[in-house]
Amino acid sequence: MNISSSRTCVGLDPRPDMIPDKLKRDALDAHGNTAAAVAAAFTEFNKRIIDVIVGSCAAVKPQLACYEAYGTAGWQAFLDTVTMARDAGIPVIADGKRGDLGSSAVHYGDSFFGAAPGLEGTPVTEVDVNWLTVHPYLGSDSVLTILGEPPQERGVFVLVKTSNPSAGELQDIAVAGGAGSSSVADTVADLVHAWGAERIGQAGLSDVGAVVGATYPDDARRLRERMPNTLFLVPGYGAQGASAADALAGARSDGTGVLVSSSRAITGAWTKTGTDDFPAAARDALEAMNSDLDR
Amino acid sequence: MNISSSRTCVGLDPRPDMIPDKLKRDALDAHGNTAAAVAAAFTEFNKRIIDVIVGSCAAVKPQLACYEAYGTAGWQAFLDTVTMARDAGIPVIADGKRGDLGSSAVHYGDSFFGAAPGLEGTPVTEVDVNWLTVHPYLGSDSVLTILGEPPQERGVFVLVKTSNPSAGELQDIAVAGGAGSSSVADTVADLVHAWGAERIGQAGLSDVGAVVGATYPDDARRLRERMPNTLFLVPGYGAQGASAADALAGARSDGTGVLVSSSRAITGAWTKTGTDDFPAAARDALEAMNSDLDR
Repeated sequence: MNISSSRTCVGLDPRPDMIPDKLKRDALDAHGNTAAAVAAAFTEFNKRIIDVIVGSCAAVKPQLACYEAYGTAGWQAFLDTVTMARDAGIPVIADGKRGDLGSSAVHYGDSFFGAAPGLEGTPVTEVDVNWLTVHPYLGSDSVLTILGEPPQERGVFVLVKTSNPSAGELQDIAVAGGAGSSSVADTVADLVHAWGAERIGQAGLSDVGAVVGATYPDDARRLRERMPNTLFLVPGYGAQGASAADALAGARSDGTGVLVSSSRAITGAWTKTGTDDFPAAARDALEAMNSDLDR
Repeated sequence: MNISSSRTCVGLDPRPDMIPDKLKRDALDAHGNTAAAVAAAFTEFNKRIIDVIVGSCAAVKPQLACYEAYGTAGWQAFLDTVTMARDAGIPVIADGKRGDLGSSAVHYGDSFFGAAPGLEGTPVTEVDVNWLTVHPYLGSDSVLTILGEPPQERGVFVLVKTSNPSAGELQDIAVAGGAGSSSVADTVADLVHAWGAERIGQAGLSDVGAVVGATYPDDARRLRERMPNTLFLVPGYGAQGASAADALAGARSDGTGVLVSSSRAITGAWTKTGTDDFPAAARDALEAMNSDLDR
């Protein structure tokens, strides 16, 4: 997958209380207090964010939960956001954290990577993201079915070690008979490495990536040893408290192999500055993040 | 949650090649070969299935992947299916297998159980299912945030042991220091039991259910000991090869505590019978399943 030399990913996770007043008023005037108004405000907000981050980030990551909460209107805002980003040349990571089996896994592949068959058999939908985040719990016939047969112009990021406080309840459980201090997350890392072995492309990175939270840098260093050819998607920088050094802990020795994601610290930067010029505030916050990561 | 005395759950997992020709032609005439045609056919198909299964099943379980593959039209078909089932008095399990953290978990709760806030703060969407299937990998601050503070008229089914061939790659891994032969699935079972402890209602069953596949009956018996107050959602009966005895392996000693799910063996029964009367074929297949489980 084509991820540029930038190491930053901008999360597009809109919610009503992060939308500036003027956009709210415009949407309410046009649609009343409806899901359609929320969706219109999200789409306009994302459009103006995308306009100012082109060339300064490697990818955008819309969080499906934010859009799904608004039904069909919200789903349309997600689809429009994908189109706007792709048209601007920015790769898209759909943060859906999907995971299912059998024909349902096929359907999720259809949902996010291209086309689902119509009643006459020919394709009728065209959603096309570059990456999808997925759960590991169902194993290979879930993850690899969603991904499809190689070679594909698509990838998945498998949840390995997440950034949230309760991540360790399952992920840190020690596994019997493993070498040293193997955990459940280490086991998933070994699966991710094996799944990606036949799918290694550009820069020695496979189409099977891993989500490794910045909030657990020691784990990131250990997991890198188990996944030398894996692109890490790293949430938790900024708003969740991790530093640049924490976020880069899982980088390869040449500094590559990580994609550090930040959402509301960028798109919500305007709320901290006392300005309504949210695109400028987002651009400044992104430049500051890029500098912080490049130090 | 109100699950009737029946132990069967009908999966509503439509796909184009399971739709009878007449419904296809009607939808194509009205909408052409579009996602809207697929959605219209799915909605009509589900409507006629729901009409004949009222009173003979405990719940329906639409599989989100089938609907999502058709974008906004597909999402609308899912919402319409939920409304039709609820209006008919049938509880709905949304089989979305969601799992996310922080505010995204809140959004998934909003998406499936009630209402998301509009631009003026008041609710603007009204989706309301009874249960949602969820992944355990992120731990309690994912699962319990989606569920919300008790008491709620809602529940989740946490994936514990799934019915697919590669389920064991992660779920069967032996855990260090556990009593006897503890596995990752056993660890998740202990979490599910703990999460449900403060949420026990009707019939001594908690709002935190578990997905335990019928294809691994020995596991189901062991997992029941770890989760005495947990409702098991049991996929894998019929099409995936498990028998009634397999499906009931995880029942409590009085026979309760299991909800056995079947999808295409019921809704696709017409394809095996040479009839176009798919509602009658579905009703007959459901009656046969009920008899099989009650023997």
